[in-house]
Amino acid sequence: MRIGILGGGQLGRMLALAAYPLGFRCCVLDPAADPCAAQVCPHIRGEYDDYQKLYELAQWADVITYEFENVPVATAEWLSERKPVYPPPRALAVGQERLAEKEFFTRLGIPTPQYCAVETEADFYAALRQVGLPAVLKTRMYGYDGKGQVVLQSAEDCPRAWLRLGGRPLLLEEYIPFERELSLLAVRSREGQIQCWPLVENQHLDGILHRSLAPAGGSEELFERAADYACRILEELDYVGVLAIEWFQDGPRLLANEMAPRVHNSGHWTIEGARTSQFENHIRAITGLPLGPCGMLTNHAVMYNFIGSVPALDAILQTPEASVHVYGKSARPGRKVGHVTLITLDPEELAEKLPQWDQLFARRPYRENPEGGPSES
Amino acid sequence: MRIGILGGGQLGRMLALAAYPLGFRCCVLDPAADPCAAQVCPHIRGEYDDYQKLYELAQWADVITYEFENVPVATAEWLSERKPVYPPPRALAVGQERLAEKEFFTRLGIPTPQYCAVETEADFYAALRQVGLPAVLKTRMYGYDGKGQVVLQSAEDCPRAWLRLGGRPLLLEEYIPFERELSLLAVRSREGQIQCWPLVENQHLDGILHRSLAPAGGSEELFERAADYACRILEELDYVGVLAIEWFQDGPRLLANEMAPRVHNSGHWTIEGARTSQFENHIRAITGLPLGPCGMLTNHAVMYNFIGSVPALDAILQTPEASVHVYGKSARPGRKVGHVTLITLDPEELAEKLPQWDQLFARRPYRENPEGGPSES
Repeated sequence: MRIGILGGGQLGRMLALAAYPLGFRCCVLDPAADPCAAQVCPHIRGEYDDYQKLYELAQWADVITYEFENVPVATAEWLSERKPVYPPPRALAVGQERLAEKEFFTRLGIPTPQYCAVETEADFYAALRQVGLPAVLKTRMYGYDGKGQVVLQSAEDCPRAWLRLGGRPLLLEEYIPFERELSLLAVRSREGQIQCWPLVENQHLDGILHRSLAPAGGSEELFERAADYACRILEELDYVGVLAIEWFQDGPRLLANEMAPRVHNSGHWTIEGARTSQFENHIRAITGLPLGPCGMLTNHAVMYNFIGSVPALDAILQTPEASVHVYGKSARPGRKVGHVTLITLDPEELAEKLPQWDQLFARRPYRENPEGGPSES
Repeated sequence: MRIGILGGGQLGRMLALAAYPLGFRCCVLDPAADPCAAQVCPHIRGEYDDYQKLYELAQWADVITYEFENVPVATAEWLSERKPVYPPPRALAVGQERLAEKEFFTRLGIPTPQYCAVETEADFYAALRQVGLPAVLKTRMYGYDGKGQVVLQSAEDCPRAWLRLGGRPLLLEEYIPFERELSLLAVRSREGQIQCWPLVENQHLDGILHRSLAPAGGSEELFERAADYACRILEELDYVGVLAIEWFQDGPRLLANEMAPRVHNSGHWTIEGARTSQFENHIRAITGLPLGPCGMLTNHAVMYNFIGSVPALDAILQTPEASVHVYGKSARPGRKVGHVTLITLDPEELAEKLPQWDQLFARRPYRENPEGGPSES
């Protein structure tokens, strides 16, 4: 079977590497001259609204998927008239617009931080009265890795925030002083079979994921609640493939922050740490194969991102627990260029090793590039 | 770093798939128009003695390796004057010639079945008197998967065997009524660090590996003896990369049958079952990186080859313990087209599951293709 992938970043690359052992071929479509996935599979160079190139991909492929959530919905719909597109284009439409996403969660009974739509300055101040401070002002579209949002601590922050973001459709959200940020990855097959990987605890630095720890720890009830919410979303969308949902845990509360209709950075640990990786199960789902089990293969798995540049491999690989993934991208501040996953087989080992690993893979604070980077997650 | 690989079969393919996460690029040289590794990396089409194509590979690559043991020694030596070639060409010379190989084992104090060189018919009958019956008559070069050898049970078999194989340099070996056939895979880094995976028990059908079971079971002393023998070989050859050694276990005796200076079919289980796969450690070794640990990640791992054609994937993947590897090769009798590895996390589980798996992945007896197949192992 031939799989067409919109987007040729590291997620596309790892999808292709997971598709090969199943005997499938992949091709990515990406506007860049040398996206990193093109090192491991054929590449059609084209914009995501270049219908000639999209036609070429649809002719080649038996099934089409995507590795980023900002694929134009019109593109996904146009392709889906030619070949099966998974996840369904509707998932893109919901995931791309923060207001639609929050309203979707609310409609399915999934708790979220309190939110208000904001279009005018008057809306903004009305929303502030309703939501209170602190709060977060966000653009509705194209936000990722903390971009397109401003935290409002006090009344003084508000005019500046409006100057920076105002004029576009916005959203004002309650600021959650969360205990932990969690994510749940779930996968649904074409036949409607659903599996969830364990909850993961994520730490961000400068708005970019720094570390994921699996399993997150916490009650079985917490996991079951998250899995139940995930099932509602998957079924409502008649979803096929991997879906990531990010949560704030605030005491006993579990509040949905956002979802991504794709494989996700916080699931990279599954390559070594789970019985089936997120990449393999995404490929199995979209090609109509049965899903593999999502349980842990090891006691714990910890993933750290490499941001900006890849550390010296020989030093990292001295750590016997480490598996390295280098994406073949050139160095650039703020860019995700690789990750490392460390596994523990001994349940006692994590407490001893985690502080060492945190130090070994510490990331120096990095100031956001004002130009913004490419759309990679 | 860029890795050139001589041979574009499934072993080259799996080497490339292991090299990508480390950020390396691969290119295979293979005379076939569409070798299966060419689905996952660039391919230079050329014979193994086409020096123009070899030059092209050497220009492109930073380091060169090979996936089969019948690479012409002259080719490996010629390349090694241009770029580092690992494993060293001398390992090819030893592994290609059964008499040299046995003499090499003997010189290092590694026990083997009794053997005699045979060139003439008079040698043959003299050797029979020395070795006795039953015995095995073998060609010295280009044997694999049981090809190029005849078992002699009684005196009546001898004239026919001579008719079939005589006229070439041969070897007569004692027939070992072995309890078990084992293999040990070991890896040595450029700095001389050595690691061994657990001993594996192999079952063959029609001379082709059918099932590998890891770990083989048996005493720690048996493993240590095999590992000690492997170290002698690796150090004597100043070896870099993965080496496979096949053994007969005859009661307390461990007799070396043959070695292969490459990754090996009996090590495919390491992808899912070991902390570091044979493919990744081969890549780490030849690129000068530290080796990863070779211990088991699971309690047991069992691998079955798919010979001739790949069974229906959706049926296999219903088995939650199964990980499938399809090589992207067309179906042909006797051809290795894929494998499946099954892992158990519960130490008790194997006894219950193994008979089911043996039945699920049973191979029907297959008559050897008289034309012979391509040189794949």
